[in-house]
Amino acid sequence: MTVLITDAEVAARLDAGTAVATIREALVAAYEGRLVAPPRVSAPLGGGRLMVAAGESTGEWYGFSSYDTFGHSEAEQVVALHDAGTGRVRAIAVGEEIGSRRSGALGGVAVDALARPEASTVGVIGAGGQAWTQVWAIAAVRRLREVTVYSRTPAGREKFAARVRAELGIAARAVPSGSEAVRGRDVVVLATTSPTPVISAADLRPGTHLSTVGYKQVGRAEFGTDLLDRADLLVTDSMAQAGAYDPPMLAAVPPYAGRLRPLGAVLAGAVPGRTTADQVTMFCSVGLAGSEVFLLDRLTRESARATGPGAPRREVDQAARSE
Amino acid sequence: MTVLITDAEVAARLDAGTAVATIREALVAAYEGRLVAPPRVSAPLGGGRLMVAAGESTGEWYGFSSYDTFGHSEAEQVVALHDAGTGRVRAIAVGEEIGSRRSGALGGVAVDALARPEASTVGVIGAGGQAWTQVWAIAAVRRLREVTVYSRTPAGREKFAARVRAELGIAARAVPSGSEAVRGRDVVVLATTSPTPVISAADLRPGTHLSTVGYKQVGRAEFGTDLLDRADLLVTDSMAQAGAYDPPMLAAVPPYAGRLRPLGAVLAGAVPGRTTADQVTMFCSVGLAGSEVFLLDRLTRESARATGPGAPRREVDQAARSE
Repeated sequence: MTVLITDAEVAARLDAGTAVATIREALVAAYEGRLVAPPRVSAPLGGGRLMVAAGESTGEWYGFSSYDTFGHSEAEQVVALHDAGTGRVRAIAVGEEIGSRRSGALGGVAVDALARPEASTVGVIGAGGQAWTQVWAIAAVRRLREVTVYSRTPAGREKFAARVRAELGIAARAVPSGSEAVRGRDVVVLATTSPTPVISAADLRPGTHLSTVGYKQVGRAEFGTDLLDRADLLVTDSMAQAGAYDPPMLAAVPPYAGRLRPLGAVLAGAVPGRTTADQVTMFCSVGLAGSEVFLLDRLTRESARATGPGAPRREVDQAARSE
Repeated sequence: MTVLITDAEVAARLDAGTAVATIREALVAAYEGRLVAPPRVSAPLGGGRLMVAAGESTGEWYGFSSYDTFGHSEAEQVVALHDAGTGRVRAIAVGEEIGSRRSGALGGVAVDALARPEASTVGVIGAGGQAWTQVWAIAAVRRLREVTVYSRTPAGREKFAARVRAELGIAARAVPSGSEAVRGRDVVVLATTSPTPVISAADLRPGTHLSTVGYKQVGRAEFGTDLLDRADLLVTDSMAQAGAYDPPMLAAVPPYAGRLRPLGAVLAGAVPGRTTADQVTMFCSVGLAGSEVFLLDRLTRESARATGPGAPRREVDQAARSE
């Protein structure tokens, strides 16, 4: 029987620490070949494209997540989890919480692996859902002292800062320019819809970790090659996806392609991460295929444990019977 | 709120007549451009490929169906229906009933449009689920007198014949060869997994309608070009899909490509169908994208009507209140 999982259930059960730990496992599994994660495929429809990211955890499950580019503000994604032994669908998630928490967690893993251990300030450009989950996940891996945020509309950035204060309990300020948001920060997040650079390399101080979540293609990127030149280490969550963009991803063409490394390799210890405190590290987030299914599998197993033999519910039942 | 629809609900509510009528609408909508139906896309996984067929009914919905080539006998498909206005997921179907009834209904529409009106005998090669739903749908559009079936294993074909007798109330015989199954029949169905021809043109009598559901590509086809040469009319449910196979579909390469016509055009009256009683017509079934979503949309609307204002349930409630 298929379990249908809603956004409310995901929000109630998938905290940032769990999401980051699970996505870390997914990245290592992909690097070691246990998670098969080909580039996304897409089908052209009238109003936009349907995008599908498929993955297989060898011997355990296969599945996919789908989303689209129609641009509806309420658009929901579908994540499907098939049992590898039978092909049956164990669970379906409908909504946007798994996808957005997944994207945040990818950034959280990157910060945990690459930012300086004492990193405590975050500068964010962008005030949408993607920007939010980045900060949500980073707060689970570093003890943050302050978040600064810039986005084009004052109301949007003020609201974002208020949400950081209220939900994460971290001091946060909205500032009137991108460079002001990121200058002197330990961690910088670009999560915009901008097709042109929103900061320059001169805005980064030595030792910064930078994550880019928005456009990062040739001719359409929220940063310029000056950032790639400045970075001592270029990392992505999926080499396959990084190489599959059209137009190509900036960091996947010469001279940068030869320097791009899989985050999973850093996590597995096969590739060095940050080696000095003043290096600039840069994470190009592309959306590892199968990682949403990885999260759904984890949620589904926890549900089974919570209601299965030996779970708290059973003890309650026994207590009820003994009365 | 997303509705999850199971195979049991589809089986209880989607009879052959409804399925054929709905898929007929889908074919006409695709021909007229109201149903956007691009070729399937696929992602390579370790154990097989994930296949996704997406479609959009302009201004009403968009969605997709997914299946895979892992080869599990219990494999389930996912069909997702998004509201075009909001992007939210109105319904998800998990199982195989929508997909298999859809495939049968495509064949049923083709038989209804192309077979002689008095066609009453069907010869089937193949005894699997695909063969079954073809006969199930054909029985809804023609008054059938007898079904003959051949498949490689005697037990399989005997079981198939017994099922036709029991569930459709039609005389049915299992026979020991393919040519015996199809010779002299009004309608012939090829629904095998064979990569080589299972009958020859000499087995067909004038006036036959033939539907092919199995492999139909260059170098891998359940029939040879002799059937294409013999056919007076070549029709497919999706020109886009017909042109997207790799290796190419036999009927989509010269000299046949120029003769291949969309079934929707025949239904819409834009292209002639059968014009004489002794013509041989041939339907190359490829699986119109979006047609499973079309069926799910229909099922979902009927659910809404059945439980909405004015539906029988409400009258019961009023009766209860008046007591």
